Amino acid sequence: MKYKKQKGSKAERELVERFWDRNFAAIRVAGSGVSKYPCPDVLASNGSLSFAVESKSYSGDYVHLTREQILQLLEFSQKFGAVPVVGVRFAKDEWHFFDMAKIRSTKGENFKVTRKIAEEDGKTLDKIIESYRKAQEN
Amino acid sequence: MKYKKQKGSKAERELVERFWDRNFAAIRVAGSGVSKYPCPDVLASNGSLSFAVESKSYSGDYVHLTREQILQLLEFSQKFGAVPVVGVRFAKDEWHFFDMAKIRSTKGENFKVTRKIAEEDGKTLDKIIESYRKAQEN
Repeated sequence: MKYKKQKGSKAERELVERFWDRNFAAIRVAGSGVSKYPCPDVLASNGSLSFAVESKSYSGDYVHLTREQILQLLEFSQKFGAVPVVGVRFAKDEWHFFDMAKIRSTKGENFKVTRKIAEEDGKTLDKIIESYRKAQEN
Repeated sequence: MKYKKQKGSKAERELVERFWDRNFAAIRVAGSGVSKYPCPDVLASNGSLSFAVESKSYSGDYVHLTREQILQLLEFSQKFGAVPVVGVRFAKDEWHFFDMAKIRSTKGENFKVTRKIAEEDGKTLDKIIESYRKAQEN
């Protein structure tokens, strides 16, 4: 469990770095998962566009978010004024991002992403930033 | 050192709680002070107003921020789009907040707050939120 958590933190630090590379100020959230308040794993903002990221990185075949985790991400993001996204990374693969439109379209109560779905339906970090930048302009 | 850090975390958790009580989504930042990127201790936003807080809580007679800590708080806040503030708390006292106008007015390169200065010149959380709300409206 501890090892898994450390791996998760490492992945989150890499994600934070990628946001900084793209001119976003980004941080890892402390106590995510144990805090009594809803909170994401990573927060990033460039002053006009903010993202709240629930990050999942595993070496297995799929990642899985409970309905409760999704609702908490939504609750936090709505109050904070951030775009809620789920960031998924399998082992050394690239990050794949899913926004709420995609997550809500799943039939089940939980959100499950296989490696195949991540590669086919997920967006890269650049794509997800780009799509919300455009949405702001319109 | 570890004990000091734990006390700091406890104070930060209480601060996070106060922001939630005031309808702000707030989080503690992980790895503050060790991250290679500048970052505050606490981040809070209600969607239209965001605060990046460098928090200092001690049982001694004064708290002290280095010039480097202040510059990093400014750098982060500017990029993230948050109001930079320093939150100071002595032992079980109330929190006292200082914004950059106040911090820059100090003569030295470092920012030192005694208990007396905190009580006389610091703002309560409600006051500091209120003053930036008003600034936004104008």
